[in-house]
Amino acid sequence: MTVVQSELISAIRSIPDYPKPGIMFRDITTLLGNPKTFRRAIDELVHPYAGTKVDKVAGIEARGFILGGAIAHQLSAGFVPIRKKGKLPHETVRIAYSLEYGVDEMEMHRDAIVPGEKVILVDDLIATGGTAEAAARLLLQMGAEIVAACFVIDLPELGGRKKLEALGVDVRTLISFEGH
Amino acid sequence: MTVVQSELISAIRSIPDYPKPGIMFRDITTLLGNPKTFRRAIDELVHPYAGTKVDKVAGIEARGFILGGAIAHQLSAGFVPIRKKGKLPHETVRIAYSLEYGVDEMEMHRDAIVPGEKVILVDDLIATGGTAEAAARLLLQMGAEIVAACFVIDLPELGGRKKLEALGVDVRTLISFEGH
Repeated sequence: MTVVQSELISAIRSIPDYPKPGIMFRDITTLLGNPKTFRRAIDELVHPYAGTKVDKVAGIEARGFILGGAIAHQLSAGFVPIRKKGKLPHETVRIAYSLEYGVDEMEMHRDAIVPGEKVILVDDLIATGGTAEAAARLLLQMGAEIVAACFVIDLPELGGRKKLEALGVDVRTLISFEGH
Repeated sequence: MTVVQSELISAIRSIPDYPKPGIMFRDITTLLGNPKTFRRAIDELVHPYAGTKVDKVAGIEARGFILGGAIAHQLSAGFVPIRKKGKLPHETVRIAYSLEYGVDEMEMHRDAIVPGEKVILVDDLIATGGTAEAAARLLLQMGAEIVAACFVIDLPELGGRKKLEALGVDVRTLISFEGH
């Protein structure tokens, strides 16, 4: 483990049995609230793309908005919100994705991406990858070229990274935790 | 009107009769999606505070997360989410605020602010100021010193700015629209 990784892991708060018994919730708000670790996480996520043209950063509601806003600003890219259905005011494209029980939908504005644009997808954490995979499919449908999908935290046992890689998407994560 | 203001106003999409008849919705996603106007908005909001110590940027869910994340990164501050109730995993402080019909609550983590910390409050737009005033009261309760409340868009006829100023909070906005 690198010094940066151990700094970032120490900044995460682990909350047992949240949101339900048996789940260890990895709370990123403590990392975001610390000026040093917030800046470090953004800079680490971004540095491989400093010399790459990135048109848009797409952030997944809601924590992906915080990191995605910072990354878009740092890369001088535009920001595109991927939201739960019914929250965007203009014409949208939607995609369904599976939850533990049932399905939900997420959407983007239809004109948010111009075909061929280079896009980085951002969220705080990748677990089973259900929302990230749906978001990536939505971007690909709209003709985006996905430069990478970036997450601060990976829960590798839950297999999300592999789902994205199966779509041909490069995945960048900074730290990982065992278990759920 | 300055050149920057007219550039930012042109980047806002106005959607009539959304979310209901008679309301002209000011859609900031077109401004955020354009790399030039997104960067301009962040830089304009931030430049008065470049020489000021700012410990935290508090963003109001959800569009305030996008702008707040970028501003926190730009100022090398921490980021604090102010969320709708029930979404934060650790111990919180709550405040009720009025909606058009009924009331709702927003909350922050109890340990998100240390008394005396200098905080900038961020959202995309200030209208009646109901949520912004509640967020400012919550920050003040926790002992924050509010450096400023920053919004890209002001709807001055709806009086939100005055509510914040009555709390002694400096308000910074970039552009304004008449009517709702």
